[in-house]
Amino acid sequence: MNYKKLDKISIIEYLSNIKEIIDYFGSDDLVAQEIGDGNLNYVYKISSVQNQEKSLIAKQAVPYLRCVGEEFALGRQRMTYEIRALQKFYSIYPNFIPNIYYVSEEMSLVVMEYLSNHIIMRKGLINMVKYKNFSDHISTYMAATLFYTSSLYLGSIQKRELIDRFNGNAELCKLTEDLVFSFAFMEHETNDNKNVKNNPQAKKLFGDMEFKERALELKYKFMTQSDALLHGDLHTGSIMINESQTYVIDPEFAFVGPFGFDIGALLANLVNNYIHHTVVTKDEDYKAWLLLTIKEVLEKFSEKFLNFWSECKKSALLVEGYLDEITLNSYKKRFIKNILKESVGFAGCKMARRVYGVAGVEEIRGIEERALRAEAEKTALKIAREFVMEHDKIDSVDEILEIIKNAG
Amino acid sequence: MNYKKLDKISIIEYLSNIKEIIDYFGSDDLVAQEIGDGNLNYVYKISSVQNQEKSLIAKQAVPYLRCVGEEFALGRQRMTYEIRALQKFYSIYPNFIPNIYYVSEEMSLVVMEYLSNHIIMRKGLINMVKYKNFSDHISTYMAATLFYTSSLYLGSIQKRELIDRFNGNAELCKLTEDLVFSFAFMEHETNDNKNVKNNPQAKKLFGDMEFKERALELKYKFMTQSDALLHGDLHTGSIMINESQTYVIDPEFAFVGPFGFDIGALLANLVNNYIHHTVVTKDEDYKAWLLLTIKEVLEKFSEKFLNFWSECKKSALLVEGYLDEITLNSYKKRFIKNILKESVGFAGCKMARRVYGVAGVEEIRGIEERALRAEAEKTALKIAREFVMEHDKIDSVDEILEIIKNAG
Repeated sequence: MNYKKLDKISIIEYLSNIKEIIDYFGSDDLVAQEIGDGNLNYVYKISSVQNQEKSLIAKQAVPYLRCVGEEFALGRQRMTYEIRALQKFYSIYPNFIPNIYYVSEEMSLVVMEYLSNHIIMRKGLINMVKYKNFSDHISTYMAATLFYTSSLYLGSIQKRELIDRFNGNAELCKLTEDLVFSFAFMEHETNDNKNVKNNPQAKKLFGDMEFKERALELKYKFMTQSDALLHGDLHTGSIMINESQTYVIDPEFAFVGPFGFDIGALLANLVNNYIHHTVVTKDEDYKAWLLLTIKEVLEKFSEKFLNFWSECKKSALLVEGYLDEITLNSYKKRFIKNILKESVGFAGCKMARRVYGVAGVEEIRGIEERALRAEAEKTALKIAREFVMEHDKIDSVDEILEIIKNAG
Repeated sequence: MNYKKLDKISIIEYLSNIKEIIDYFGSDDLVAQEIGDGNLNYVYKISSVQNQEKSLIAKQAVPYLRCVGEEFALGRQRMTYEIRALQKFYSIYPNFIPNIYYVSEEMSLVVMEYLSNHIIMRKGLINMVKYKNFSDHISTYMAATLFYTSSLYLGSIQKRELIDRFNGNAELCKLTEDLVFSFAFMEHETNDNKNVKNNPQAKKLFGDMEFKERALELKYKFMTQSDALLHGDLHTGSIMINESQTYVIDPEFAFVGPFGFDIGALLANLVNNYIHHTVVTKDEDYKAWLLLTIKEVLEKFSEKFLNFWSECKKSALLVEGYLDEITLNSYKKRFIKNILKESVGFAGCKMARRVYGVAGVEEIRGIEERALRAEAEKTALKIAREFVMEHDKIDSVDEILEIIKNAG
C-alpha cells in the first residue's frame, strides 16, 4: 500500500486486514482514540469495543513536524529508522522495548504494546517517585544496546551493514546538530527568545567562547564518531516506567554515533530533575535518591558493558590472541573511562541547550515563578559548563556527583 | 551488460561499441596488451594500430585476488568504489587524477588516460630521483580531497550521502583492519613467516604489548572515525609521477575514514624510502631531500587545508557567527594539529606492518643482503614504535623529522 495519512476511521479499516492485529484482537470490533505525544506524529490507542483491557498503540509519522504544521517539512522516513531501531534493540534485549505487533516502513506506521500501567518518567520524577529498579534496568539497556551494536562485538562487515541501515536518518541527525550543539548557544530565531531578550545570563552564554569551542569539539564527535547504534534522544520523556518495569520508546533519532551521547542525554535529564528539586521542592531526600541513581546508572553501565565484553573474544576490533590478558584489561578500562568522559561532555551540551534553545524541559522551563526559574537556569548552566569544560579530566563517577552537588 | 571477465580480444569488442572510446580513437583499429599491477586486477593498454601514440588504460576487477587465484575470493565491487573515488576526487581537483574516459560499475571496468611519461613513484625514489614539485602537488591533493569531503565543508545531509556511496566497501576496509592493524603484529599465517621464524626482533614486536595497545587505539579510530573520503592506500606505489606531474591512482580502498590515514600512509612510505637509503645507498644528499620533502608535504598540507577552510563560512560543523574569529582560529589550529598527530600514529602502524606482514615494501623487503635487510627492519620498527607511542605528543613537523633522523 502506498503511504497515506490515516485518521481514527481509516486506521481501523487498515488494521482490520492485518493478520497480527486480528491475531491479537480476535473477532472483536475495534475503536481508535487519538492520544499521545502530538509533537511529531499521530498516535492512536486502538481498543477492543468488547474488552477495554485489550489495547494496542498505533503511531504514524506524517511528512512534517506535527506540532508546527505542514509548513515545517520533516521526512516521514524518520519512522523507518524508529521501526528499525525498535526491532534492533528488541532483538538485542527485549525486556525494555514494547512488544511490536506490526510495522510498515511504507506507511510509516508501527503498532505496539499499549503500556497501560506506565507513565512518562519525567512526570514521575517531578512528582518525586523513586523507581528502585530504574538504575538496574536502564544500565542494562544502555550497556546491551551500545555494546552489541559496536565494533567491540560486531564483525567489520556487520558493523558497516548496521551503519547502512541507519545512515539515511540524516534529517534527524541534522536537527540534533543544529538544535543541541549550535542554535541554542547563539542568537537564533528558533530559541526561546522571550527569555533570551535582555537576559544577561543568555548574553554571557552566547559570548562564552571557551565553552562554545569545547561544545564544537563535541559536535564534531557527534557527527563523525560511529561507535554504536544510539537511541539518539534518550531523555526521561522517552522512558515509560512504573515501579517494576522500564520501557524505552521513540527512537526516531536512532543512528550510529558516539557511545557517550545516549548516556549523556540520560545524565543531563536526571541532573535537570535534580536542579528542579533543588530550586522548587527542596526535598533533600529525593535529591539524595537522584544522586544515588545517577551514580548507580553510570557505575552499573560500566560494569555491565565490561561484562558483555568479557564474553566476546573476537570482533571487528579484536583478533583473538592479539593482546595478553593484562594489557587487554587495561585497554578496556581506559576505553570505558573514555565513554564516561564523553558522556559528561555530551550531558553538558544537552543541559545547556535546554535553557534557551527551542525545546526546554518541564523541570526548568516549566517553573512558573520567574526568580526561581532564573535560579534553576543559572544552576543548569553552571553544571553544564563544568561538564563541557572538564569532561576529559573526569576520572570517576564521584567526580561527576561533586560537580552536581557543588553547583546547587 | 551483465558482468563478464574480459580478455585481450573481448575487451576490444566491448570497447568498440562505447561512444567515448570511439570519440577518442576515431575509426582506428584497436589492439589490447595486458600490462600492469597484476596483483588484484586485469590491466590492459588499449592502443590504436594506426597511431601508437594514442593509448588508453582499461582496468577490470575480477571477483578474487588475482595474484593468489580464484580460491581467494574478493568481491569485484571494489572497482565500484575505485570508480566512485576517481570520479569524486576528479570533480574536486582534476589535476592529480588521470582523465576518465569510461566507467561501468556493472562490468567493474574503468578506462582512463594512459600515463606514458610517468613511473611508479616508489621506483623513482629508489633510484634517487628528486621530484621537485611533488610536495606541492601531493599536499594540494590531500588538502583538497580531505577538506572537501569532510564535515568542515559539506552539509550534514551531503556528508551522510557521501558515506552512503562508500560504506559498502566493507571487504577492503576489513582487509586493512586485519593486515595493517592486527595480523602483522602477531603470529599469523599471512605474515612473511620465513623471516618471522626464529627472529628475535619479530618476537619482540609480537610481544610488545605497549605498542600493540596503542596500535589498537589507532585501529579503533580507523574503524569508527568518519572524517573524510580517503584514498585508503596512499603509498608511493599508488602515485604515478614525473618531474612535472603527479597522479594518484588505484583508490580501491576508498572509504570515509580518519583524516590522518592517507597522510600517514604517505609519510610511512617516504620514511621507508629514507631507511632504504640510510642502509643501502648511504646517499646523504638524497636523504636530506627526502626529509625536506616530508617537511614540505606536511607543512604545506596544513597550510592549504587551513586556506580551503578559511574560504568556507558554513558547513555541517559550523553555523556562521557561532564563534568569534579568534576562537575559530584557535579551534582550527588545534584541529589541524590533531590531524598531524593522528597521521604520525597511522604512519607508525603502516611502517611496522610492512616489516613482517603479508605485504612488504621493495625498499626494505627487497634488500637482498640479509644483514642490511635486518638493519633496515630494525630501524623501521624503531621509528614505527616511536611514531605510535608518541604520536599524540607530537606538536610540530620538526619533531617528526627528529624521530626519523635519530633512528638512522
